Amino acid sequence: MTLQLADLQSPMQLHELSNAELTELAGEIRERLCQLLAKRPAHFASNLGVVELCLALHSIYDFRRDRLIWDTGHQVYPHKLITGRLAEFETIRTRGGLMGYPNPTESEYDLFMTGHAGCSVSTVLGLRSGDDLNGETERQAVAVIGDGALPSGIVFEALNNAGGMKANMLVILNDNKMSICPRVGGLATYLDRLRGNPFYSGLKNEVVNVLNKVPVFGDPAERFLAQLKEGFKAGLHGGMMFEELGFQYLGPIDGHNVAVLRKYLKMVREMKGPILLHVLTEKGHGFEPAACDPVFFHTPPVFDRDGDEAIIRRKASVKSYTAHAADAILDQMRHDSRVTVHTAAMCQGNQLETVRETFPERFFDVGICESHAVAFAAGQAKTGLRPIVDIYSTFLQRSFDQIFQEVSLQNLPVTFMMDRAGLTGPDGPTHHGTFDIAYMRVFPHLVVMAPGDANDLGAMLEFAVKHSAPCAIRYPKENAVDLERQFAEIELGKAEVITEGDAGAIVCFGAMLASCLEAARRFEDAGAGRLTVVNARFAKPLDTELINRLIRTMPFVVTVEEGNLMGGFGSAVLESANEAGLDASRVTRLGLPDAYVEHGERGEILESLGLDPAGIFNSCLAAARRGAEVAPRSVS
Amino acid sequence: MTLQLADLQSPMQLHELSNAELTELAGEIRERLCQLLAKRPAHFASNLGVVELCLALHSIYDFRRDRLIWDTGHQVYPHKLITGRLAEFETIRTRGGLMGYPNPTESEYDLFMTGHAGCSVSTVLGLRSGDDLNGETERQAVAVIGDGALPSGIVFEALNNAGGMKANMLVILNDNKMSICPRVGGLATYLDRLRGNPFYSGLKNEVVNVLNKVPVFGDPAERFLAQLKEGFKAGLHGGMMFEELGFQYLGPIDGHNVAVLRKYLKMVREMKGPILLHVLTEKGHGFEPAACDPVFFHTPPVFDRDGDEAIIRRKASVKSYTAHAADAILDQMRHDSRVTVHTAAMCQGNQLETVRETFPERFFDVGICESHAVAFAAGQAKTGLRPIVDIYSTFLQRSFDQIFQEVSLQNLPVTFMMDRAGLTGPDGPTHHGTFDIAYMRVFPHLVVMAPGDANDLGAMLEFAVKHSAPCAIRYPKENAVDLERQFAEIELGKAEVITEGDAGAIVCFGAMLASCLEAARRFEDAGAGRLTVVNARFAKPLDTELINRLIRTMPFVVTVEEGNLMGGFGSAVLESANEAGLDASRVTRLGLPDAYVEHGERGEILESLGLDPAGIFNSCLAAARRGAEVAPRSVS
Repeated sequence: MTLQLADLQSPMQLHELSNAELTELAGEIRERLCQLLAKRPAHFASNLGVVELCLALHSIYDFRRDRLIWDTGHQVYPHKLITGRLAEFETIRTRGGLMGYPNPTESEYDLFMTGHAGCSVSTVLGLRSGDDLNGETERQAVAVIGDGALPSGIVFEALNNAGGMKANMLVILNDNKMSICPRVGGLATYLDRLRGNPFYSGLKNEVVNVLNKVPVFGDPAERFLAQLKEGFKAGLHGGMMFEELGFQYLGPIDGHNVAVLRKYLKMVREMKGPILLHVLTEKGHGFEPAACDPVFFHTPPVFDRDGDEAIIRRKASVKSYTAHAADAILDQMRHDSRVTVHTAAMCQGNQLETVRETFPERFFDVGICESHAVAFAAGQAKTGLRPIVDIYSTFLQRSFDQIFQEVSLQNLPVTFMMDRAGLTGPDGPTHHGTFDIAYMRVFPHLVVMAPGDANDLGAMLEFAVKHSAPCAIRYPKENAVDLERQFAEIELGKAEVITEGDAGAIVCFGAMLASCLEAARRFEDAGAGRLTVVNARFAKPLDTELINRLIRTMPFVVTVEEGNLMGGFGSAVLESANEAGLDASRVTRLGLPDAYVEHGERGEILESLGLDPAGIFNSCLAAARRGAEVAPRSVS
Repeated sequence: MTLQLADLQSPMQLHELSNAELTELAGEIRERLCQLLAKRPAHFASNLGVVELCLALHSIYDFRRDRLIWDTGHQVYPHKLITGRLAEFETIRTRGGLMGYPNPTESEYDLFMTGHAGCSVSTVLGLRSGDDLNGETERQAVAVIGDGALPSGIVFEALNNAGGMKANMLVILNDNKMSICPRVGGLATYLDRLRGNPFYSGLKNEVVNVLNKVPVFGDPAERFLAQLKEGFKAGLHGGMMFEELGFQYLGPIDGHNVAVLRKYLKMVREMKGPILLHVLTEKGHGFEPAACDPVFFHTPPVFDRDGDEAIIRRKASVKSYTAHAADAILDQMRHDSRVTVHTAAMCQGNQLETVRETFPERFFDVGICESHAVAFAAGQAKTGLRPIVDIYSTFLQRSFDQIFQEVSLQNLPVTFMMDRAGLTGPDGPTHHGTFDIAYMRVFPHLVVMAPGDANDLGAMLEFAVKHSAPCAIRYPKENAVDLERQFAEIELGKAEVITEGDAGAIVCFGAMLASCLEAARRFEDAGAGRLTVVNARFAKPLDTELINRLIRTMPFVVTVEEGNLMGGFGSAVLESANEAGLDASRVTRLGLPDAYVEHGERGEILESLGLDPAGIFNSCLAAARRGAEVAPRSVS
């Protein structure tokens, strides 16, 4: 009688199972993953790819003591299913439910809450080093990292350090040939060559062919070496790049064969020093449609499973800010041959496929290498081009120092499209992009914008491409609206007044503008008076003239932003008032608190934080009440 | 008649010189460098190491059109000497004089203002790519990068990208075996092996030895491959790591032999695709004392040259904040075995030599890999250790995303010692650490402190090591003072009142406290009344109780910080007042403007910005005058 998922009390039970039993369990896990995807979008293909690897790991190690970090963490579903979270599994990515990434508050088996790629080797080295200093040398330390995250600079820094320290740790390279989008760069070609290793393919003939090329003794040594090098380059060596950094390289091995995986894991468990085990997996393995199109099935929409087919339930398509941004980028590229676009492996997420196909020579996907992307774009800008760097707000944090040195300090016209700014919803804290207003506006020269609606977005990009200094445009992961209004052209540092009233003012930075207008309607409907609603557009330079006038003359001013309040847009407003010597005590700043906000639907979270129309309305009422309590304003 | 430096109107003249003439010119450049060092501290050994390389480059390329980036940029002195800046050379690193790093406003030969390591390959790839898109394919693109910067993650990201793009560019690896401190990590060992390459050393015997190990045909292929691998590892291959990324590797060659350098540069100029030329240089070459101790001579104190000897003119030693920090770290390590310390190749700059010698097993130098350093430390913290990450404020910008994900999000007790916070003086904009208050305080959980004097520093570190959440301590590159006072223990979120008065208040965050006290004395001496002077200690959590009370009751409050005002400490004060509904119009914020501040002595710059005692005094007077003009305060 085979052990079923529901019978699994602890992953330690896996130690007792046969390879066949584990393989059967793998099938059940895949079934659960497919069931989940019938309910809601979630990470899919990557999870299907690591089922056997996950089971094999837990069947050899004891991760209550041993250390395991799944790099990035989107492939952690099988791990969650076998570490006590089966019952809540279908709550994943919903508010109050399981997180879609590792979460230490859920389980002792999750050590770090992650989501950004490439840090696993560093943290595992830290865990290894800490355990050693604590005298707990018997604890094992394992990082599982995908080939997509591998080119990320921090991985190389960590491999270099681990190799130099000769640390006892295992890095499992989960090579599925993908980085969400197909992988790119010299390293990708290198891994392709490793895949052709005859140990794996069994093609001993290739070895013989190379042997035949080795000249007899007496030939010039240089010639020999040149041929030796060619032989290695042909794929006959085993992971010299890793060996050169001080790692022992093993593999590649079949990542869907439980027996092979367990054999190798048992072996490396006894080995000393840093080891890299190269495991070949197939993204979407075990479910034909996902294996055939792993890009689409990275985080697919909801689908019904019909045997080996996925029937996608298409949502009514409302155009998102991301889609508007992609269109605007394409438009700029059509009109201006200086415009290039840069993505860090997010061609799909940023919906840049059409851009890539239309202007392949001006489209650059550098892989998950945000730091390089920004410096690379700066180099292009120096030659007169107008690069657009299209990176999620949270991932752009990787480029903080390059935004400083390569862009802001040189005052180069690079445009940052900060997608997923604000609350990204089901992904949670590692993906919310809530610090960007604060961290971008500190840089001299940088212009920081946020569109109030879809119309703004295209106009802002056009402005940015023509502007002679760096610009950043932040917009949320949300459907875009077109607000009906007399559209004011984008002008540097100028806000747009949408409605005028004298009962108070709402100054909104970004896409919550529609909610602010709705709040103002409710305010008026409640008989509290008519509000001025301002589409701030710029956090930097701020429209200090308008904003200071509102602070001087209005009973109250409420600022609204989808970002952390600390150092954010509201603080810029306070700074502006302070510099003008104004009393800003009638300013109320609405935004995100100084805490990490959990996952959930964006709307749910905004509501819970008082940032939906009702919440903004209530804040306005409260502000009006406070304003009435203190002395009336002096009009200057 | 040989061309002398003074006769050089353009580096194009170098194209006409013989190797012997260039070598003679190299001697003159070295003489100039030694003369400079008799005047003031400056980067020295690294510049001595690249004299021939610099001359060779300019004698083959035309860098008015061709692209040249010196990575990091501290080795740019010879380049400055031959590109029209001989006359002003001795003004280098002084206010209004030449910058010690590349500076595009000085010369068309400097493309990017740099100072942070590792970005040259990215920017050169961007320049290459931009020139190609502009149809200027004949322009050459060259990056010169030291082996110290090589392990920096962004370099790997860029090499990977350039290899994948097959870009026509040259990366010159200037391998002097140093990274300010001796280099570390697996890559260092690898480069050491390349140094042993028989092509370079001429030891053909080694080749023969390896050949003898190759078994006859018919042996198992695996055994053959294993031996082949060993042969390669023994140093017989040429830069496979770079080849594997798609680069063509050449070298290593002698970086002090002009003839060899020119021969190779001419050759690679005609080659296609990405090329890595491995050049061996000696840091301090040509001046015996510097070659023998390149760490000391990286940025040595002023010395007199006596032939081949350097006679150091020792300054009266006043203890700097850096020295106090090193002592405090050592002290914590003595008392608490959980404390580890991490540096990113700045063992010398942070004066951690004693720490390294006393506690080698708890001292970690990861090389110029700040991102990894922080994630690595987070891993250690997870095991119960109390890591201290000792990185200059400006370089910690490289770790922004790891401070977010690996430290703040997990709420791990990592302590950041942000040395060189504020104005670093002669190094200039790339080294000033002026954004850290703004960028650190956005992170939930993080405690942000700055010592008012030397006493504070040690006490703050002790507090941080005991505190159960991440802490950051920022302090300047400056001599420390011990302020005489009744020392108040460090308490989370509590400021320290140094003097009490009712004419107004100065709230100082950090080491400008002594200047604030001096300003208060002048204020009193001027008969303007007695001021309250507060040592804020914490920017986060802020002592809102005390600060709000001051805002409510004082005729004026002046905040003082050595950081950018935008989003900084003063803004935190405004936020605090705003949350309490207070009128903060009597608050004046003193700090750095929203612009890049040029190099110069720290004192000179502070004075020019009104941040010296006289400037603070004047601001207090002005604030008092404004306070008297408006309605008197209501005391609540």
